[in-house]
Amino acid sequence: MDQPSRSAGTVRPGGRTARVRAAVLEATQDELVERGFHELTMDQVAARAGVGKTTVYRRWGSPSGLVTDLMNELADQSSPHADTGGIEGDLRANAVSVLNALNDERLGVTFQAVIAAGTGDEPAARALHAFYLRRIQEWANVVDLAVARGELPAGTDGAEVIRAISAPLYYRLVVTREPVTREVAERSVARTLAAARAGAFVTTGSRG
Amino acid sequence: MDQPSRSAGTVRPGGRTARVRAAVLEATQDELVERGFHELTMDQVAARAGVGKTTVYRRWGSPSGLVTDLMNELADQSSPHADTGGIEGDLRANAVSVLNALNDERLGVTFQAVIAAGTGDEPAARALHAFYLRRIQEWANVVDLAVARGELPAGTDGAEVIRAISAPLYYRLVVTREPVTREVAERSVARTLAAARAGAFVTTGSRG
Repeated sequence: MDQPSRSAGTVRPGGRTARVRAAVLEATQDELVERGFHELTMDQVAARAGVGKTTVYRRWGSPSGLVTDLMNELADQSSPHADTGGIEGDLRANAVSVLNALNDERLGVTFQAVIAAGTGDEPAARALHAFYLRRIQEWANVVDLAVARGELPAGTDGAEVIRAISAPLYYRLVVTREPVTREVAERSVARTLAAARAGAFVTTGSRG
Repeated sequence: MDQPSRSAGTVRPGGRTARVRAAVLEATQDELVERGFHELTMDQVAARAGVGKTTVYRRWGSPSGLVTDLMNELADQSSPHADTGGIEGDLRANAVSVLNALNDERLGVTFQAVIAAGTGDEPAARALHAFYLRRIQEWANVVDLAVARGELPAGTDGAEVIRAISAPLYYRLVVTREPVTREVAERSVARTLAAARAGAFVTTGSRG
């Protein structure tokens, strides 16, 4: 995170703070993936990150605080919405991005750990909520673009379309525990698009 | 579970076994709701059920065994699919049944606890899988009836239609942590039905 031109040994406080945060969040994610939220402890994260316990307690407060900051960081790192020039391509890009995240050994297990945490821990639930709202709002833009191009009816609710793309993938992953494959992603796109073209996602009353 | 006509004090072994099971499963559900899967212990369930520890260990083996049997029992207790005479009414009945279960203080928290358990515990994941497969297959019948009545295209995949009804509700409940309202259920029905009528759930190649 430092400027490449800066000489060694002249690290700003901001640079050090950023490196501490990166180490702590990486250790948090490691612990979540290996042990889950219920065994996430401040002391273990501090030890794994090579950072003083007091720093971790002072800055993050609790395991929920660590998870919240990790989800913020994952949202910051997520790629912006696609712009393939057509709604089908854009929704497919969204579905494949979700598919790849869920099937990624590290990221998929992280999401599942935080989803599990959210069922019983209010701050973890809020972190999940904030993460997905940011991702849904980012991708809802592709629907607005499609409406502007005349591909989808005016008044189509972009956030609802994006939720509909993801929902069947997450449902299989954490509820029915069925495989989440490329075919599942493709079907989600085709079905969501069929419903959107039929006006079933128009929520403002300006159906047309 | 005994016949009302049987005299007191002449309980059959089968009757006693059934009562022990009922007490243990109720205690399991109480503990899941109050403490979650990670704090579910055999000893606590035995104490709460008023049953000997050795019985609980011998019959259920582990906390995962208790959860598996609880999910079997909940599937047994679940109501059969609706038959309102029309696919829209049947799918609405399905959506409302899921909605009510998820918003039920006891049942909704139970499902969330088992979903959380399933993210890290393989037997709990298998119990979830078996439970939802039974429910999906039971309700898929309403789609077959609709196809037979000519309401939906031949080859429409009933299990996939039923998954599509539930998915947005569970997605909001456990992933985005958004309210699961009657409006959400109604929208799920309208969108799934629009896609099904457009043939987007035909998976056998006999689209038409």
